[in-house]
Amino acid sequence: MADDVRAVEWTGEGLRLVDQTRLPGRLEYLDIRDVEGLVGAIQRLSVRGAPAIGVAGAFGVAIAMIQAAREGWDGTALAAAVERVRDARPTAVNLAAGVDRVIPFMAESLDAVVAEAKALLDEDVRGNRAIGAFGADWLLERSSDRPLRVITHCNTGALATAGWGTAFGIVRELHTRDRLDVVYADETRPLLQGSRLTAWELDRLGIPHFVQADGAAASTVLRGLVDVAIIGADRIAANGDTANKIGSVGLALACADAGIPFMVAAPWSTIDLATASGADIPIEERAAEEILGWGDVRAAPAGSRAHNPAFDVTPARLVSALVTETGVMEISAGETPGQR
Amino acid sequence: MADDVRAVEWTGEGLRLVDQTRLPGRLEYLDIRDVEGLVGAIQRLSVRGAPAIGVAGAFGVAIAMIQAAREGWDGTALAAAVERVRDARPTAVNLAAGVDRVIPFMAESLDAVVAEAKALLDEDVRGNRAIGAFGADWLLERSSDRPLRVITHCNTGALATAGWGTAFGIVRELHTRDRLDVVYADETRPLLQGSRLTAWELDRLGIPHFVQADGAAASTVLRGLVDVAIIGADRIAANGDTANKIGSVGLALACADAGIPFMVAAPWSTIDLATASGADIPIEERAAEEILGWGDVRAAPAGSRAHNPAFDVTPARLVSALVTETGVMEISAGETPGQR
Repeated sequence: MADDVRAVEWTGEGLRLVDQTRLPGRLEYLDIRDVEGLVGAIQRLSVRGAPAIGVAGAFGVAIAMIQAAREGWDGTALAAAVERVRDARPTAVNLAAGVDRVIPFMAESLDAVVAEAKALLDEDVRGNRAIGAFGADWLLERSSDRPLRVITHCNTGALATAGWGTAFGIVRELHTRDRLDVVYADETRPLLQGSRLTAWELDRLGIPHFVQADGAAASTVLRGLVDVAIIGADRIAANGDTANKIGSVGLALACADAGIPFMVAAPWSTIDLATASGADIPIEERAAEEILGWGDVRAAPAGSRAHNPAFDVTPARLVSALVTETGVMEISAGETPGQR
Repeated sequence: MADDVRAVEWTGEGLRLVDQTRLPGRLEYLDIRDVEGLVGAIQRLSVRGAPAIGVAGAFGVAIAMIQAAREGWDGTALAAAVERVRDARPTAVNLAAGVDRVIPFMAESLDAVVAEAKALLDEDVRGNRAIGAFGADWLLERSSDRPLRVITHCNTGALATAGWGTAFGIVRELHTRDRLDVVYADETRPLLQGSRLTAWELDRLGIPHFVQADGAAASTVLRGLVDVAIIGADRIAANGDTANKIGSVGLALACADAGIPFMVAAPWSTIDLATASGADIPIEERAAEEILGWGDVRAAPAGSRAHNPAFDVTPARLVSALVTETGVMEISAGETPGQR
């Protein structure tokens, strides 16, 4: 198997990020040395995926400290820079959580901040391995001997995390156990994380797969072409409502209608107990250009406006299983993160 | 209001088609003089929309007769050419119905075939006006005084028909009656009939609208941003199961979950009483390239395969209302076309 790609890596002087806007055509890296560069990379989705931007945010505090020393910022300027990193995107709770986790170490030293960010990175990889095992166990206990056919949405692999993947980690675990048949990957408009990134990771791993239009997802489920949907999450409310890439809730409705499991996989840090329900999750509205064209080509007429929410909310009643590094909660059966 | 665009027009010597692959950037026409040209235009989706290809198919018989005379074909060659037109796309029943309708006039004369094709074209426009009125009446009887917010998928306007539109005809009727607030148009991957064609027609008519990713449709419905979904159909089975552009059934599931009407609008000729249920409708699988990239840009890696069904089937239980030129049937309440 190919070595896992490292989406986020600390070089000692800054962050080295895979520039995910260039994949699958080119595997190029960005060397991030200042806060502007990091915020831009997060907002352009050069680095994306809730766990990956959480880790990038933690290292971002170290970058801000280095830049503060280099440019002679006072404490107020440094605090403002940390806040800019924390707020670069609004929906994923992991970004703010990653920043908040290392802030207490700022008073100690840069090394302490870096060490804590590295600890977060290592925990994410270990957590993803656990998610993969718990998720595969839960599915295989409920399956016949036939290898599973999986549908997924967006990208939740090594590129979206510190390594291995969340929802994609379960897919990999099934593949490792020789219990995976095929993956249907939604292309995931507008930025095509499915066809560009998930397909690239599947291809590297030699996993048979189809890319399909997002509009095909419900039909693929209703026609009985898949056994389970597995997706990631950007924020999970205390009641189990789940924000994830736009297109997720439509897939969840189809799974409920067809009677197959809709599985959400995410590190425990994605759960925001301070958010009671999905109605309280802020949904990022992104630029119209992402919808009104593709690459440099304009599709819609000049007079059209775009509705471009980056995420949707799947109500808890449609989430069969939530897999974290601590185990599986059967959300639609009544378990909620808030009970734990 | 801008004059209606004529997607399909008989020039006396051949067919003049709007080249819908060039919209919205350019309004260009194709002059079709032979069967090869027509079949290519239908398969490339230069002309598309079930009613429009039905009319194009009827005129296609005339084109075949002219070509047969010009090139000295025998009867077998002419019959084979007619069959090629009839089979250019498999899902929409209107194409075969349009061809079949004029075949009995071939023995009489070319003029008789052209006259019957023109009658079909005129009937389609009149039928669409009736669909618009019946659909708007049904909706407004069930609505408060607030102007309606509508979601639609693919293109069902003047471009998809001989004129005015089917589902889009209802939207226009609401607009004409000053009872339309806004339209959410799914972009409709892979070929973007929503952002390219529906948005272009909405823009021409001055109707406020948003273009959105297909993945946003379910969320737009569940968030209460729209009052009704109105779509077209490519084939409707005797039990009310409806084949339409891929992405339709996901929208239908969302409407059922949210308790808003899911309305299908199509000429009666779209109903195929010989097809008992959706399971018997052939679903066209289109080229992988449509999914794996966009325009000339490849998105997915070379190792990826595509799953590219052009249509999906919405089960009758999810179709609140089927609007034809004869009135409204409440399909999910138990009415079926086969009963009539």
